Amino acid sequence: MIGLDEERALADMRQLATFGKVGRGVNRPALSDADVAGREWLRTRMSECGLESVVDGVGTVYGRSPGAKAAILLGSHSDSVPMGGCLDGALGVIFALEVARARQSSAATATVGVDVVSFSDEEGTFLACMGSRAFCGLLSRDELASARNSSGELLLERLDALGLSQRERAQFDPERHRAYLEAHIEQGPKLINAGADVGVVTGIVGLRRFCVRFQGQADHAGTTPMAVRRDAAAAMYSFAALVPERLRAAGGPDSVWNLGVVSVKPGAANVVASEAELVVEFRDVSKATVDRMEEAFDALVAERNKVGGVSLDARPIGAVEPTVMDERLVDCVDAAAAAEGARRMRMPSGAGHDAMIVARRAPAGMLFVPSIGGRSHDVTEDTDEADIRRGLRVYARAANSLLESLGPDGTGALDSQEKAQAP
Amino acid sequence: MIGLDEERALADMRQLATFGKVGRGVNRPALSDADVAGREWLRTRMSECGLESVVDGVGTVYGRSPGAKAAILLGSHSDSVPMGGCLDGALGVIFALEVARARQSSAATATVGVDVVSFSDEEGTFLACMGSRAFCGLLSRDELASARNSSGELLLERLDALGLSQRERAQFDPERHRAYLEAHIEQGPKLINAGADVGVVTGIVGLRRFCVRFQGQADHAGTTPMAVRRDAAAAMYSFAALVPERLRAAGGPDSVWNLGVVSVKPGAANVVASEAELVVEFRDVSKATVDRMEEAFDALVAERNKVGGVSLDARPIGAVEPTVMDERLVDCVDAAAAAEGARRMRMPSGAGHDAMIVARRAPAGMLFVPSIGGRSHDVTEDTDEADIRRGLRVYARAANSLLESLGPDGTGALDSQEKAQAP
Repeated sequence: MIGLDEERALADMRQLATFGKVGRGVNRPALSDADVAGREWLRTRMSECGLESVVDGVGTVYGRSPGAKAAILLGSHSDSVPMGGCLDGALGVIFALEVARARQSSAATATVGVDVVSFSDEEGTFLACMGSRAFCGLLSRDELASARNSSGELLLERLDALGLSQRERAQFDPERHRAYLEAHIEQGPKLINAGADVGVVTGIVGLRRFCVRFQGQADHAGTTPMAVRRDAAAAMYSFAALVPERLRAAGGPDSVWNLGVVSVKPGAANVVASEAELVVEFRDVSKATVDRMEEAFDALVAERNKVGGVSLDARPIGAVEPTVMDERLVDCVDAAAAAEGARRMRMPSGAGHDAMIVARRAPAGMLFVPSIGGRSHDVTEDTDEADIRRGLRVYARAANSLLESLGPDGTGALDSQEKAQAP
Repeated sequence: MIGLDEERALADMRQLATFGKVGRGVNRPALSDADVAGREWLRTRMSECGLESVVDGVGTVYGRSPGAKAAILLGSHSDSVPMGGCLDGALGVIFALEVARARQSSAATATVGVDVVSFSDEEGTFLACMGSRAFCGLLSRDELASARNSSGELLLERLDALGLSQRERAQFDPERHRAYLEAHIEQGPKLINAGADVGVVTGIVGLRRFCVRFQGQADHAGTTPMAVRRDAAAAMYSFAALVPERLRAAGGPDSVWNLGVVSVKPGAANVVASEAELVVEFRDVSKATVDRMEEAFDALVAERNKVGGVSLDARPIGAVEPTVMDERLVDCVDAAAAAEGARRMRMPSGAGHDAMIVARRAPAGMLFVPSIGGRSHDVTEDTDEADIRRGLRVYARAANSLLESLGPDGTGALDSQEKAQAP
């Protein structure tokens, strides 16, 4: 892409990483002082290249190409998990900024432009994907009013304290925003393990999450014969040990699950547990597969209920439907990677992203760069600089293809100009 | 026994239950204000019937029969677990007090007397069986100096604050203390379920306790393929589900085990667990059986170590050897129960008791009364009044037999005068 400057993009990535810097990573939870300072810096960078930019009413930074009648929307998020990495989200925002800068420098008066966004709170400090949901009109007043962070602070009070609550919120415009393209680190080991340079994201997995509660009876663990116990912990261990085989049988080759939260009450070595709780989640990119996994899970709950005098109850505590990326954008990213000579791999995203939200309003696509060791959500998260540079070139080429497909007046059919080649 | 007064004993039990009263139970952890006030009241009651009584340097109440050259030692403890029952420990102390009162009223000048004790901190607020261990000379200076309660308060500072630390500690006297007899609630459902009135305790189970640590690797639970995870939680669930079958196979019919403490780190629904910890304990009255269970447990740890990329490490965090009650005292309690027409049952104690400590210095025996629903360590703990009365009569008769077997000058062989009858 004409005017693309890899050095400038890398320098900006390093600069953004100074906000909330902790070792090699960043501590920049949404709407923290570090996050807001980073967003203000981003807004300035967007203005410097000619975008009309704002930090909006929920903290989203939006830079609008001023002359354009139509635009492609590029971006990601710049908040982090607590003690996270400096690339998760930030890389995609800087890629978008760099592409917009190149576009502004070479075609500032074009009818079709590049808008840049850094969505607020993708990581869910207050509300997961808050910025993209607000942008797309998919966030209710009630959700906003009741959202709190883990310290119990209300979102609305935090926005007030930052002087943001009275500001307008940037809004998705179906006439203007013809496509959304997001670059992101993979956050997993598939690219690295396969020796691939670029991930062409085909979809974002759906997720179901349940809290399983086991109700038994507390008893003295020395004096109560095994036969008369109603041991909630023992029932939980048996159940948890069966979950993998049942989900494996019901799921597909890429299905994943996790049982990462558990508690037992009263939690004493010499007291039989009266209660246990277990959080079970599972994901797949196919809705049919996630449905089958849920059926298998429900069947296991029913099968184990009352065994050993312990009652089971599974309560859904989270669900995200799988998102399919727009085929035209998938092809476009694939073709761009091929044109850059990148070893590419089509893959679903196992993690959620803002693209999952924006895909409900516009054709959306994603591109992954490899994560060293698959690490993310940790200060050790990293990506090889060569992979970042290559990713930026592929991303810029894909964006350029999209712009070209929209034609000089923005009325063209969305399509990739370069067709995918065999690698 | 001449002079035994069931009404007086029941009234004293109710009176002792007012110290730290919470609903039907008591909150009287060792050396709390309520515990110390209860102990001061006990000391006064002992003095009133002619015993030389003290609250000693660790909080143990000891009442000494003044004229006697030899004595049987009777008692239990009067501290409780947090929010515990009003009979656990207290019943045995009041039984002992009542027997001493009867003895003092009928044979105050006898050469063989009844000494009464309420040991400090049987429940382990600072140190399990602290009072009986101190009394028996089985507590090191280091253990005393490092003991803290769950709030982090040092035992020695607490004793200082109570003005106890400079006091002498009552000591076991091998010349004087010819036998120890303790009455206690069963704390389990065996007597109730069998329709028995009195438990004749044959021994106290031994216990082994281990903390098993699982070390894996944290990963994103959406993006990391199942095949490359090193999931510490999954390894823990599989291990915990195997423990019961292995211990059942290695143990005896009365063996028990418990896995009542578990934790997983970092403890997030969407993060593969890097670490898990599990506390496993098992008990049996036979040392050989406990040894076999430990072998089976060790084998399971070795078998599961490194499975799924998770390393296991089991660290012993507690061990109590089984205690055999003195056969003469077992026979003596059995005979007393038979003489009182009680339906009796020989049984091991699944819980630890001060008798387990004193048994290392003197012939020791125990008697159980039934626990309604097997409940204990809870404010709902209770025993039928008829069972308390019958238990007191059996206990007094057994104590009387012991006194008689020692002869008028205390030189007789310890033996039961009444032989057990078929029920």
